[in-house]
Amino acid sequence: METESGISSRKWRFKGNEISMRSSALTVRSALNMLMGNLDPNDQRPSIQLGHGDPSAFPSFRTAPEAEIAICDALLSAEYNGYSPNIGRLHARKAVAEHLSHDLPYKLSPDDVFLTSGCTHAIEIILDVLACPSANILLPKPCYPYYEARAIASNIQFRYFDLLPERDWEVDLGAVEALADQTTVAMIITNPGNPCGNVYKFEHLKKVAETARKLGILVISDEVYYHLTFGSNPFVPMGVFGSIAPVITLGSISKRWVVPGWRLGWIVTNDPNNLLKKYGIVDSIIGFLNVSAEPTSFIQGALTQIFEKTKVDFFTKINDLLRENADFCFSKIKEIPGMTCPSKPEGALFAMVRLNLSVLENIEDDVDFCLKLAKEESVIVLPGATLGVKNWIRVTFAIEPSSLHDGINRIKVFCENHSKK
Amino acid sequence: METESGISSRKWRFKGNEISMRSSALTVRSALNMLMGNLDPNDQRPSIQLGHGDPSAFPSFRTAPEAEIAICDALLSAEYNGYSPNIGRLHARKAVAEHLSHDLPYKLSPDDVFLTSGCTHAIEIILDVLACPSANILLPKPCYPYYEARAIASNIQFRYFDLLPERDWEVDLGAVEALADQTTVAMIITNPGNPCGNVYKFEHLKKVAETARKLGILVISDEVYYHLTFGSNPFVPMGVFGSIAPVITLGSISKRWVVPGWRLGWIVTNDPNNLLKKYGIVDSIIGFLNVSAEPTSFIQGALTQIFEKTKVDFFTKINDLLRENADFCFSKIKEIPGMTCPSKPEGALFAMVRLNLSVLENIEDDVDFCLKLAKEESVIVLPGATLGVKNWIRVTFAIEPSSLHDGINRIKVFCENHSKK
Repeated sequence: METESGISSRKWRFKGNEISMRSSALTVRSALNMLMGNLDPNDQRPSIQLGHGDPSAFPSFRTAPEAEIAICDALLSAEYNGYSPNIGRLHARKAVAEHLSHDLPYKLSPDDVFLTSGCTHAIEIILDVLACPSANILLPKPCYPYYEARAIASNIQFRYFDLLPERDWEVDLGAVEALADQTTVAMIITNPGNPCGNVYKFEHLKKVAETARKLGILVISDEVYYHLTFGSNPFVPMGVFGSIAPVITLGSISKRWVVPGWRLGWIVTNDPNNLLKKYGIVDSIIGFLNVSAEPTSFIQGALTQIFEKTKVDFFTKINDLLRENADFCFSKIKEIPGMTCPSKPEGALFAMVRLNLSVLENIEDDVDFCLKLAKEESVIVLPGATLGVKNWIRVTFAIEPSSLHDGINRIKVFCENHSKK
Repeated sequence: METESGISSRKWRFKGNEISMRSSALTVRSALNMLMGNLDPNDQRPSIQLGHGDPSAFPSFRTAPEAEIAICDALLSAEYNGYSPNIGRLHARKAVAEHLSHDLPYKLSPDDVFLTSGCTHAIEIILDVLACPSANILLPKPCYPYYEARAIASNIQFRYFDLLPERDWEVDLGAVEALADQTTVAMIITNPGNPCGNVYKFEHLKKVAETARKLGILVISDEVYYHLTFGSNPFVPMGVFGSIAPVITLGSISKRWVVPGWRLGWIVTNDPNNLLKKYGIVDSIIGFLNVSAEPTSFIQGALTQIFEKTKVDFFTKINDLLRENADFCFSKIKEIPGMTCPSKPEGALFAMVRLNLSVLENIEDDVDFCLKLAKEESVIVLPGATLGVKNWIRVTFAIEPSSLHDGINRIKVFCENHSKK
């Protein structure tokens, strides 16, 4: 037998697929991990995390007790220990269809619903489905970076259209038309918006659908923040316009019930004209789900009860809290030198803030801003570079109010310390 | 606005990725769905499912109460509603490392453990990791077909080596050496065996490792049925030989705790010489997990308690039941015309049975056998075609004993009815 050193020096033929490193480097988590490494261990204050979109650890954001009970009931029934069908259990798909139909001018069928392990899994599946040779998709800028990361992993090309900050982050539809060509198959929007905290109006969504129809492409609408709205615009699902152009909605219980760790999401076809079936999209969704892990069975088993039993008060409380936090964040940022928030967040968990580096000294760009903010004030915010836009930052306001106040004050101190004299 | 018919006749540019259909067609579920479609609706008897590997619905196979309690405890603590790190929570990875180290001559570290949404997700990730351009992997024949299905989805080539029925389904190591070339990166074994129900001996596993070393490839050992053994051979993890050649173990709580719907599995590196790190395999595993959905957080949170609290009695009861069922199945099949089971199952949930079509009439091949068995006797078994071997069938004996007796008797009647006079 060889010596240990003989084994190590031997030539081995395997190596790791490098696509994963390129893909993984783009995620929010990679950016936050890099910033966390820059925290000052000598700072005695608690660090304040305004970088991610998961407030579940805070007492004010604890999920509804009815949802927890529903899970225990399903688990202890012992009816949900086994495998589920890869597209999800029928009664759970029926529950999602009924739940989402409340907001639509037509009724979804369980056949329109495919369950996934949260919305990230839904994104993975839908990009795999669209990744035919030479196909491309259109992504918004700024963009939740998981789309670009998974597009690389799925080997599908992508192009960016702008969202317009001066128009409440509406889609630049002219840019969409200019970008699309014969190889373009879909455009992606998020509503309520991540990272922009905007909520699209009915009329704008209708124009998005009309543009998609003109271009012959489908609309993927990421609605994982559905009904987390607290401004003047109500949530309108893109599926309302599914008869203008086919729409695929991605969603989950992660954000509205504040349980991203439960991993229960969905892909929904909003397509009264059955074009997604006709063009093989539905079969391909089913095919990829057949070679993928399904969401935990007893969480599927709990879904009907979660939808039926959760009290309206829970949702009202969460939205009220988000509204107060968003208002606080928006009004305070106005007072901070070097920062502008072009529009008050009306949905989701984030504010996009523009940096004016001409009034700040010793700050090179958004990444440098975030690194120094972590170092000097133990506050984490997400650099715009991660979202495709330079010299912006994304600030999460979905944390315990006292921590938010502390965090925004520290950002203010940081900017004042770095103000040009 | 266009008319409905105008929309339908318009040219749309999207279409579904066809790879998913090729991949999905190969799965056990696709085969079983095809057979289920051939059941006779006029047969008043309950259909008997001897085709799949999920006995969780049967009262005798209900999971341990300690495991259910652990899940409820973790859920109600509200500590696990949020996202987990994509590789899994540290304490959960530590729990798996300690749990698996009991069977190894060295101690695993939490850094050797990566949590996945069950073993199917582990297979998906590891095939993505190995799928460098022009790389190929070696698969056993017969084989759990998910490997081929995922290899197609991951775009990695594969070649088959035989398992030898006359040698208790040992690997034909000569065939492995003949198959491998400069582009071969890994070989896959399953132990305890699916579909063969065999349990490899220490000495054979050592030879597998030595062959892998000679070829410069790594061994992927699918041990999802670990410790489900009830014959003369004890379960020996392939990781015991990780210092001869690097070993990656895939596993989960799905089979041993009879909870495949919980979706909690792992990828474990058994590699005292750190070659998997050196050759970029570990970084690529982490990279792909970073762009994939992690397993449900509160199930991760329950893992320590599940491992510590489940009583030995539970495992003994399950293995005793499997032994009795396997013995019954093996002895009864001997009496059935046209059927031979070359070796008595000693592990996992299955017996591989060879069909002798020369003594059966009006049966073309294994698929025809299974279709007619479904039609005439309402019994489902898996055709060998799905596993890469013609004129074999895979029979699950992990069901309630009374149903197993009924099912095997119906198979006997079927073969007697089809015996050449």
